[in-house]
Amino acid sequence: MLTPANDAFETLLRAQLPESSFRPLTPAYLEEPRGRFSGQGGLLIAPRDVEQVSIIIRACAAAKVGIVPYGGGTGLVGGQVLPEGPAPVILSLERMTQIRAVYPEENVLIAEAGAILQNVQAAAEEAGRLFPLSLASEGSCRIGGNLATNAGGVNVLRYGNMRDLCLGLEAVLPDGDIWNGLTRLRKDNTGYDVRNLLIGAEGTLGVITAATLKLFPRPAEQGTALFVVTNPSDALKLLAIAQDISGGGVSAFELIHRTGLDFLAKHMPDVRVPFDQMPEWSVLVDLGLPAAMGAAGTLENIFEQGLDAGLVTDGLVAQSETQRQEFWSVREHIPQANSRVGAISSHDISLPLGAISEFLEVAGQAVSALGKFRINSFGHLGDGNLHYNVFPPEGQKKEAYSERRDEIKGLVHDLVHEFEGSFSAEHGIGRLKTDDLLRYGSPAKIALMRMIKTSLDPHGIMNPGVIFSKND
Amino acid sequence: MLTPANDAFETLLRAQLPESSFRPLTPAYLEEPRGRFSGQGGLLIAPRDVEQVSIIIRACAAAKVGIVPYGGGTGLVGGQVLPEGPAPVILSLERMTQIRAVYPEENVLIAEAGAILQNVQAAAEEAGRLFPLSLASEGSCRIGGNLATNAGGVNVLRYGNMRDLCLGLEAVLPDGDIWNGLTRLRKDNTGYDVRNLLIGAEGTLGVITAATLKLFPRPAEQGTALFVVTNPSDALKLLAIAQDISGGGVSAFELIHRTGLDFLAKHMPDVRVPFDQMPEWSVLVDLGLPAAMGAAGTLENIFEQGLDAGLVTDGLVAQSETQRQEFWSVREHIPQANSRVGAISSHDISLPLGAISEFLEVAGQAVSALGKFRINSFGHLGDGNLHYNVFPPEGQKKEAYSERRDEIKGLVHDLVHEFEGSFSAEHGIGRLKTDDLLRYGSPAKIALMRMIKTSLDPHGIMNPGVIFSKND
Repeated sequence: MLTPANDAFETLLRAQLPESSFRPLTPAYLEEPRGRFSGQGGLLIAPRDVEQVSIIIRACAAAKVGIVPYGGGTGLVGGQVLPEGPAPVILSLERMTQIRAVYPEENVLIAEAGAILQNVQAAAEEAGRLFPLSLASEGSCRIGGNLATNAGGVNVLRYGNMRDLCLGLEAVLPDGDIWNGLTRLRKDNTGYDVRNLLIGAEGTLGVITAATLKLFPRPAEQGTALFVVTNPSDALKLLAIAQDISGGGVSAFELIHRTGLDFLAKHMPDVRVPFDQMPEWSVLVDLGLPAAMGAAGTLENIFEQGLDAGLVTDGLVAQSETQRQEFWSVREHIPQANSRVGAISSHDISLPLGAISEFLEVAGQAVSALGKFRINSFGHLGDGNLHYNVFPPEGQKKEAYSERRDEIKGLVHDLVHEFEGSFSAEHGIGRLKTDDLLRYGSPAKIALMRMIKTSLDPHGIMNPGVIFSKND
Repeated sequence: MLTPANDAFETLLRAQLPESSFRPLTPAYLEEPRGRFSGQGGLLIAPRDVEQVSIIIRACAAAKVGIVPYGGGTGLVGGQVLPEGPAPVILSLERMTQIRAVYPEENVLIAEAGAILQNVQAAAEEAGRLFPLSLASEGSCRIGGNLATNAGGVNVLRYGNMRDLCLGLEAVLPDGDIWNGLTRLRKDNTGYDVRNLLIGAEGTLGVITAATLKLFPRPAEQGTALFVVTNPSDALKLLAIAQDISGGGVSAFELIHRTGLDFLAKHMPDVRVPFDQMPEWSVLVDLGLPAAMGAAGTLENIFEQGLDAGLVTDGLVAQSETQRQEFWSVREHIPQANSRVGAISSHDISLPLGAISEFLEVAGQAVSALGKFRINSFGHLGDGNLHYNVFPPEGQKKEAYSERRDEIKGLVHDLVHEFEGSFSAEHGIGRLKTDDLLRYGSPAKIALMRMIKTSLDPHGIMNPGVIFSKND
């Protein structure tokens, strides 16, 4: 049983930390982007360094006070707020924002957990390098949160997710011990993979305070195209062709459905969609190539081979950087357009690549059988990761259908499971999907996860209710 | 305290398993390649499927009998033999050798743990794909052992180590429970990273029985060159140039020192070394490129830029597949030549890339201060992974220096630690390096590893004495 972060506890911590560590708790800390969960309040502390994090966690462990680690607050599964139970410490990494070091010749950068993703990207660029993690919230999400949720985004296809982009961690474990694992080594087989255990654990096994990140050379040539494809299955065949022609140079391969373009046209008319007729399915293809390979020429080559193979019916290759931005803008604004329309139910799913087309067909029919819902299915096709969102019928509001959300969610997730897919490709479990984990997860894996959680965090102080519901 | 796999225990298991599971224990199961450890014998069982593995482990857990998982027996740190204590079950995966499925369009292959690496490579090739793990023992090592030790090899630079090449696992946990995690998904953020916890755990947390592996397109163009470089630091600068020119197409970048070439010339004269004069430092560069980029031309381009930058003084680009094989043969036979000479002490180390040159200088001087030893430092430079081997003075035998091994090892590993490197880059801990782990490992990480081990395997039946010495 946890105890609240009450006045006595605060007094105890104030004696050990500088006054500047304690900040007023504004409502923003208690909200999450989808409005599904509200935090109940607690004691907000923003430490300056790993030693202060250790002091806080050690005190919480001794007093059995819960801790909610807080990054940029952009997570989509409610892992950043604690709606109920004894008031926790909200441990914000917002003051640990330093880029501690950049080693361009090693393709390595060391950032503190509170560094905003965009600032890490910028620091890499300043050193002539690329930090490839890129996602919608990059202007406000923080590296610690990206690590805690094993963030993905548009460049996973080529560069991997956050796990693949991290060489080492500094973290504070649930007993307050500091693990300094900020190695710059590419290979190190000395014991269990503690790094990957903490990455993706959503703050339930400790607090990440800094990370060694991998950088990459910036491609000499970049190019972007929008191709109209006959269907998602053919799009995957086109991807294989694109990878062969470009030598694995495909940085992003994003599927776009007509529903998304229609939403843009109606709700964000300033975003120019460069098609005369809205195609049923299209893909945004982004290449990063060496200087010896022209990007536009390579994209035209891919288009022609796709045309010959009957996979592509139309296509536009960006002829300038402005046009590249314009093409990307289409893809990047689809989530905002979705928000304006208002989804009844949003799903971050992944599927075996070979199963995507059949899934879309079967799921589309099953959802249609429930009502005249609209589906916008888009996302990172090359990774098998789709954002599958279900909207109310034309002219109606999501609020009118909120009582049907569980039914739709159950239908979609059951089908995903049947097709050997995942109900959480990149967003994590948080509070939103603890039931799904129990329903669809492997019992042996869940049992093992529980053993680890209980062993490392016996009092359950670390992000209570996340991944494992308190009622389990 | 463990109990031996005695007659009563064998009788119990024989009642539950087919007779063919029990095989005669030949001496080969009790040896390891470096002859540092000898197994004491035990009950050899070779199950046919995951259910049989589960039966064995459940019985061992109930009776507290130790289990030594056995793959190809090629590990270099003694993890495959148990020299002392109660006789264990030696659980060999040699009968679980199936390639269960290949999905070429998904770039996925599912193999059982006993599949020999070379057969997995061949199955991928037959499907027009590449499985890139490649190492000296590929003709006899098995995928399960590759996973248990997170194997590396020559292609890590481009394709990653075994962790990076695995999407999912089937495994039996220390309580006998089967975890079916054979997912083909590229993205799946549903809970802790159990896969990476088992990979590299050297059989101490369970037995891997099958794995979903990543395949890659086969590069249309391949090319190989040997470049004479001024020193390892310049070699790394050359690598950056090579990556830029080839668009990340460098598959291998192997450092070779003159000592290795001298050893070849003397002890393996059939291996043709294509240099007139043996260079102090050279690198073998291997490229895999798309059809639009000629490999030979690209290598010549790299050579010219390296020459202009003063990094390279001479070079040979393979003009035929035969010549490619010849160049590779030089690199691949160096470990054998080393064996013929006989090292006093062999070190599988990694270093931050920027520290390699200084380390080699400082370590070379320190080793020289101990005596007229010869050093052969070679390996996977792009990963910062060197095999740093110390040999007796010319004309003398290693046996005369065996009492100095600990002194040399201590000196090298202390220096590696000082330079923030690792004393085990790719071979693992096994039994050989349990002391090093305690000496150089982070106390917080080791404490966490122990919690995990104790929690998952409370009786310590899984590969006793590996990673954690029984005396710790």
